[in-house]
Amino acid sequence: MKINEMNADDYLEFIRKLPIVSDECPVLKTLELCSGRWRLHVLYQLYKQSSFRFGELRRALTGITSTMLTAVLRDLIDNKMVHREQFNEIPPHVEYSLTERGKAIFPVFFEMAKWGEKYLLDGEDEE
Amino acid sequence: MKINEMNADDYLEFIRKLPIVSDECPVLKTLELCSGRWRLHVLYQLYKQSSFRFGELRRALTGITSTMLTAVLRDLIDNKMVHREQFNEIPPHVEYSLTERGKAIFPVFFEMAKWGEKYLLDGEDEE
Repeated sequence: MKINEMNADDYLEFIRKLPIVSDECPVLKTLELCSGRWRLHVLYQLYKQSSFRFGELRRALTGITSTMLTAVLRDLIDNKMVHREQFNEIPPHVEYSLTERGKAIFPVFFEMAKWGEKYLLDGEDEE
Repeated sequence: MKINEMNADDYLEFIRKLPIVSDECPVLKTLELCSGRWRLHVLYQLYKQSSFRFGELRRALTGITSTMLTAVLRDLIDNKMVHREQFNEIPPHVEYSLTERGKAIFPVFFEMAKWGEKYLLDGEDEE
């Protein structure tokens, strides 16, 4: 059965049967692409505004350096999640936007938003 | 309107109206807690097996050092996502498990799994 056809309970049962270390685990593969201090943050900004120039994106990410942003964008482009387009106008410039593959990760942010609203903004704490 | 009452389209429209830099964004707050090379990975392992001793958990996370794992667990305990329990048996030992708050982030992994299955395991590529 495909994960995309499972409900949350099926999936929880499914992962509990996976070996602890697994090369074929789609979560671990996704985490490999997206973990690190900035990658998810960059993808998230590209949902908020559909294209960014480099300087705009750097200003949107408080605390990132140009070197770090260059490296993160290169990784995301290599992983086909971000598209880089050069505009040969005067002056020439470059814009970054999400590919279809990058756009498709949106539900991850939606779930983070729901969790964050419930546990971080509402100050609700069940412990 | 609460994010927890929105559908995905409402939410996408909502974030496009948020300021680019926002202190009140639940995704950015969630990313603050969960970003970094290992935090999501540790949480994910704690779904797969409901409690872990330190050594078991370290072996489950290929490439992590004991110092790194200690720091990650301390952060996750501080953020009330992981619970540490000391068992005063002979020999005494410690186990780590998810709190309710930690468990509630499960849908994020489910969405990563669906995305990973579609774009990383099936080798599907729409570009």
